[in-house]
Amino acid sequence: SNGSTLMTQIYASMVKCKLWSTCSYAAPPEAVVTTAVTNMGHVAMPASHSLAFPDPLFVSLVFGISVALMSYCTWPLSGGHLNPAVTLSMLVAMKVRPSWALCYILAQLLGAITTSALLYGLTPEHSLGEMGINKVRVTSLQALAIEMIVSFQYILCILSTSENRRDPSKCGHLIIGLSVTLGHLIGYTGCGMNPARSLGPALITFVFTNHWVFWVGPLAGGLAAAILNEWVLFPKCSGFR
Amino acid sequence: SNGSTLMTQIYASMVKCKLWSTCSYAAPPEAVVTTAVTNMGHVAMPASHSLAFPDPLFVSLVFGISVALMSYCTWPLSGGHLNPAVTLSMLVAMKVRPSWALCYILAQLLGAITTSALLYGLTPEHSLGEMGINKVRVTSLQALAIEMIVSFQYILCILSTSENRRDPSKCGHLIIGLSVTLGHLIGYTGCGMNPARSLGPALITFVFTNHWVFWVGPLAGGLAAAILNEWVLFPKCSGFR
Amino acid sequence: SNGSTLMTQIYASMVKCKLWSTCSYAAPPEAVVTTAVTNMGHVAMPASHSLAFPDPLFVSLVFGISVALMSYCTWPLSGGHLNPAVTLSMLVAMKVRPSWALCYILAQLLGAITTSALLYGLTPEHSLGEMGINKVRVTSLQALAIEMIVSFQYILCILSTSENRRDPSKCGHLIIGLSVTLGHLIGYTGCGMNPARSLGPALITFVFTNHWVFWVGPLAGGLAAAILNEWVLFPKCSGFR
Amino acid sequence: SNGSTLMTQIYASMVKCKLWSTCSYAAPPEAVVTTAVTNMGHVAMPASHSLAFPDPLFVSLVFGISVALMSYCTWPLSGGHLNPAVTLSMLVAMKVRPSWALCYILAQLLGAITTSALLYGLTPEHSLGEMGINKVRVTSLQALAIEMIVSFQYILCILSTSENRRDPSKCGHLIIGLSVTLGHLIGYTGCGMNPARSLGPALITFVFTNHWVFWVGPLAGGLAAAILNEWVLFPKCSGFR
Ligand SMILES: [Ca+2]
Ligand SMILES: [Ca+2]
Ligand SMILES: [Ca+2]
Ligand SMILES: [Ca+2]
Repeated sequence: SNGSTLMTQIYASMVKCKLWSTCSYAAPPEAVVTTAVTNMGHVAMPASHSLAFPDPLFVSLVFGISVALMSYCTWPLSGGHLNPAVTLSMLVAMKVRPSWALCYILAQLLGAITTSALLYGLTPEHSLGEMGINKVRVTSLQALAIEMIVSFQYILCILSTSENRRDPSKCGHLIIGLSVTLGHLIGYTGCGMNPARSLGPALITFVFTNHWVFWVGPLAGGLAAAILNEWVLFPKCSGFR
Repeated sequence: SNGSTLMTQIYASMVKCKLWSTCSYAAPPEAVVTTAVTNMGHVAMPASHSLAFPDPLFVSLVFGISVALMSYCTWPLSGGHLNPAVTLSMLVAMKVRPSWALCYILAQLLGAITTSALLYGLTPEHSLGEMGINKVRVTSLQALAIEMIVSFQYILCILSTSENRRDPSKCGHLIIGLSVTLGHLIGYTGCGMNPARSLGPALITFVFTNHWVFWVGPLAGGLAAAILNEWVLFPKCSGFR
Repeated sequence: SNGSTLMTQIYASMVKCKLWSTCSYAAPPEAVVTTAVTNMGHVAMPASHSLAFPDPLFVSLVFGISVALMSYCTWPLSGGHLNPAVTLSMLVAMKVRPSWALCYILAQLLGAITTSALLYGLTPEHSLGEMGINKVRVTSLQALAIEMIVSFQYILCILSTSENRRDPSKCGHLIIGLSVTLGHLIGYTGCGMNPARSLGPALITFVFTNHWVFWVGPLAGGLAAAILNEWVLFPKCSGFR
Repeated sequence: SNGSTLMTQIYASMVKCKLWSTCSYAAPPEAVVTTAVTNMGHVAMPASHSLAFPDPLFVSLVFGISVALMSYCTWPLSGGHLNPAVTLSMLVAMKVRPSWALCYILAQLLGAITTSALLYGLTPEHSLGEMGINKVRVTSLQALAIEMIVSFQYILCILSTSENRRDPSKCGHLIIGLSVTLGHLIGYTGCGMNPARSLGPALITFVFTNHWVFWVGPLAGGLAAAILNEWVLFPKCSGFR
């Protein structure tokens, strides 16, 4: 019959599709997910009550929930690191090979930059503001310390959840989302926590004041978390997977 | 004894009831659940602080929690798609047969329309407002893009949770609820995300300005999620269940 | 040695304690838990920003979380029904024996009344207000309809979670807590949802205006949920456990 | 090759590291975690909208989430008691040996004090306020009663979750976090709930007015919870683990 012929064709194209996608497994999700997270954060910000001082609870929930969901949806693919600081920590924890780590980071940066470019069309003119660039409201050193603490707890959570990745209960996603929410709740600095997310708007608007804080803070915090978790709290000799 | 006679009668009526309900298994829950969700959203809206600009956090939580709970309570019955966009994506993902999909969509529309009609009696006069019709506060194209993004993440979550339906930990419901909350937090447009929910009030008040956005957006976003999840990220050849 | 003698005495008293507590297993938790929930709700209300119109999000979270936690802590004991409407539904669903149901309801009422009496000492004078009595801000019939809807979804959730009571993942508590939060978020009427909780303050202040709404609404909503869940959606012949 | 030599050296240092850290297993996490929790609470407070009356929802979420995450990240190590009142209850419940309990409490106090000292550098001058010292806004006796109730429910939750420590679903962390959030939502007194957290800022600013309330309240509440849970609700003869 006609219906079953159509079915057969769909199945054939699905098989082809499967072969292609098996090759390109891990990298595309990274780009898609970083894109989505950055996007959602930026779309959410102007929607919150005040633009000059966006409601931190509102923004924190949007970031936390979106990271939890994106982590859930792409779980078995790329391990959920949407962030150069996470990837670096995973490398130090020997949970990702150097070559893969490089791919991930490039995909993350690419995703963040294209998103920031796409943003102009989506955000209403009057609420575009300064495109949600992370601003330093305290001194640089205070901002750096806060970025480190915030990223430290975030990446410690990611390393903890990655232990029981094959665990049937998928609460790890909620843990990671809560951690992102916490980071944005306690961040004075607009909470970078993710160098890729900070780079995107900075490149588009070409404002790089104190931009280094949002690279050094997360990377140092993540490094500290990796060392604490892998070498002090739960030392084990596993080697690269 | 008297007590055990009564017991026997109750058991007999339960057996009869069981036979009848086995036949009409999947369709009634759809109508009940769509009704409940629409209802709760509308009841909640006027209760929030300001009517002209209802507190988005408040409305988002009500929608998210009610979808999570309704999905939990009807889980093994109709698979939890309370929304024509979800049903279309399930059809594309070959997780529901075409004839069932049609039944579901009809039940969803019926539920939404009857609810909107019932609404007049429940809402206090002064807070009826415009019955929570989705309004486009940005340009139509921006609204369309946002509807697509919001529905994309929602239906991607639904497809992800439907993979492990027999999973003992029922966290999937929370994931879906969080996704609905996220959608309402980032939606400029009053967040349709569900054509059935948008149709109900539009029909009752007979205001169809920009109504197409709330059909094209969710359906296109859902289609994109289905293609990404089923054919790119997690391709498999399963056929209809 | 001295230490081990002490240890032996402690063990002996623990064994005695065990025998006594096995007899009085189910009733005391009911009283303790109803007391705690009522208490927390009343303590929370004056702490919220405005007394005339307490922040509904704040109150909703306090009620939802406290019910979730109390349900978690007493789970295997009395099945978690802290509410005459729940107990009635459980009776209709044949999940509790009539004699036990009566005990539960008496314990619930007793707990709520003693709590309301204790309340005078704990709440600061100036913020005592009207002791958080449920007030009808809409017409009686609208209040009744809302009470029914709110209790319907609450008790449907309780019945759903009680299916998989031996489930290892304890997400059922969160579901119940979310349901209580939802009920308080959408309740115009101050959300009774629990006749015991409504009776306590009414008795102490001797204000019984519209008090019947907070009995008829929850009991009717619970009855509807029990019939829907046990006889329509998931019919089965199990008899009393 | 060069790469594998480096790898070998890293492995060697990891093995050494493992030996060392096995000895110092339980105590360091206690200090780290108490430090982190205190820190986050204090960093969060000034960030909330108003300093004179910080948004209780905001502060409650920060405390709750941070305790949940820290409990998650250090789970198998020190059992998650970050608080002298918790440790005392665990001792009464015979879930920790006296010598270990002493170690824990000392680590907790040390962590809280050093954190309060570190705080001066991190918090912006103008928002330092009174360093988030717990203040008694009601009479001392009312504050004491509230502290007892709040700590009672918190420690009851901790004892409940410690039953199923080897449970695959890690929802216990969320339960504990919710309990902390609840405690801060209903606390008039600035919610101590944790003598270590109260001691830190008091020592630094040398203000000890009503300080006893924040020791007697939590310890008495915790004791009551331990007796209720271990000797009344779920009595068992297990002895020290
Ligand atoms: Ca981020
Ligand atoms: Ca919806
Ligand atoms: Ca209640
Ligand atoms: Ca605390």
